[in-house]
Amino acid sequence: MKLVRFGEAGAERPGLIDAQGSIRDLSDVVPDIAGRALSAEGLSRIKAADPSSLPLAPAEARLGPCVGSVGSFIGVGLNYADHAAETGLRIPKEPILFNKAVNCIVGPNDDVILPLGQQRTDWEVELAFVVGERAHHVAEEDALRYIAGVCICNDVSERAFQTERSGQWMKGKSAPTFGPLGPWLVTLDEAGDLGALDMYLDVNGRRMQDGGTSTMIFKIPYLLSYISTFMALDPGDVITTGTPPGVGMGKSPPVYLKAGDVMRLGISGLGEQQQHVFDYSEGVEGRAAHYKSGFDLV
Amino acid sequence: MKLVRFGEAGAERPGLIDAQGSIRDLSDVVPDIAGRALSAEGLSRIKAADPSSLPLAPAEARLGPCVGSVGSFIGVGLNYADHAAETGLRIPKEPILFNKAVNCIVGPNDDVILPLGQQRTDWEVELAFVVGERAHHVAEEDALRYIAGVCICNDVSERAFQTERSGQWMKGKSAPTFGPLGPWLVTLDEAGDLGALDMYLDVNGRRMQDGGTSTMIFKIPYLLSYISTFMALDPGDVITTGTPPGVGMGKSPPVYLKAGDVMRLGISGLGEQQQHVFDYSEGVEGRAAHYKSGFDLV
Repeated sequence: MKLVRFGEAGAERPGLIDAQGSIRDLSDVVPDIAGRALSAEGLSRIKAADPSSLPLAPAEARLGPCVGSVGSFIGVGLNYADHAAETGLRIPKEPILFNKAVNCIVGPNDDVILPLGQQRTDWEVELAFVVGERAHHVAEEDALRYIAGVCICNDVSERAFQTERSGQWMKGKSAPTFGPLGPWLVTLDEAGDLGALDMYLDVNGRRMQDGGTSTMIFKIPYLLSYISTFMALDPGDVITTGTPPGVGMGKSPPVYLKAGDVMRLGISGLGEQQQHVFDYSEGVEGRAAHYKSGFDLV
Repeated sequence: MKLVRFGEAGAERPGLIDAQGSIRDLSDVVPDIAGRALSAEGLSRIKAADPSSLPLAPAEARLGPCVGSVGSFIGVGLNYADHAAETGLRIPKEPILFNKAVNCIVGPNDDVILPLGQQRTDWEVELAFVVGERAHHVAEEDALRYIAGVCICNDVSERAFQTERSGQWMKGKSAPTFGPLGPWLVTLDEAGDLGALDMYLDVNGRRMQDGGTSTMIFKIPYLLSYISTFMALDPGDVITTGTPPGVGMGKSPPVYLKAGDVMRLGISGLGEQQQHVFDYSEGVEGRAAHYKSGFDLV
């Protein structure tokens, strides 16, 4: 299944993509694409619904992030052999984990806003997986049972914040709008061979990243098991698994995002995202409604 | 005001401590000590309630974490001059930030469970602050307006996970039960001089940490402003601001937690916490109800 969340930022409704490619409203089946709806039981309930009996979403509905109520948003650093090479950093002997703030998550086609003081904001097309069941101390061979599905993540990164401001990469990974997720949460049964997905990212129509999951160092089952050594993963937690070569900091000379740029990125079978880039000063209030209001917690 | 959350894990109700030291139920005033209830408007609504008119909580009610629906749980590393010295690490030139998983948060007197594979689990009494209004790009002189209050945090830390597993401290800071918060969220008007609070932590009745916020390097207004450079802070986000000297890794020889230990820790004006320590194998299911069930997201 291809699951989505559609509607105004902060008030998204759950949906699925039907055989004709239209969005059907799942509000009467599950409260959200979040929490228990991501469990085997929740996904079975969605699967049992007849799409043709569900209301169509309004045409042109905005797509929100494809998972809601994310508790932990974790990135894996330097997880592609060819990307590690372009950064000049050594391949890690075990996964490098970092945190992205959950309130940086936006829809797949929402605007990306460059934060004040940014110098070198960069793109990273990534394959993310979404947890479906609480996972703590889970063995690698059991790991896929704890995963609801996968989606595209643009792990937007401000390199100066990330690497020049006293360690811990979270500083460069967490600005509002730095985490577009979607368009779809694709359940594992439809996602194909996770080790053989093609990935690309264009900026202003120019191909920047061109790679695939075949050069991923630590694979998804290992990553879930590994992370579950240190913490519990809960339904709706998102782990984005690293980027292939072609990031801006790896270009010669380096190239970074500027206002007016358009990013377009995709992974085979998982759809495509497109984001317009704006400076913070260009009216965050008006242009990016989600930016101010999308994340109220009560 | 001293605000609390009481009741079963995952189903806590909001409350306040009245003049007699009893818990009064705030369920008819705010839905939770979370989100908008932490704004100036929410706190005013609570303040306007007459405590004597509110129902008393059941005697012996369990205290949950004093804030709910935490979006980001951020720690500040090496933020006490005397603690930095005991670790042998240099005082950072700007704050070191790291992430704790939000699902490690437990009540102030809940059990602490040592994770499988742990070798050197340590204690850290800390002053935490709780965000009340969305803060992004906030100046230091405005920072206090964005803070709802402060509480005690035991920033429980597994040192081998933290420092020997490829960078990024979150690996050692995030195991379930590693984030006791409470007993009270004390609003800023009642918290006294945040730069002159005494702090202590005892293990099995022996004083281990004995310090105070006077040796804190980066103060709370600076920290909120600094963090808001990199990300937005939302209502309910918790920032724990570092620990004074006396952690187990700083002892000679080092001392770490083991099953059967009892931690007791406090900060002047903010109350006291007490946690019993158990091995993971000692029946997580039965003993620590919150451990399995406290964090369902839907």
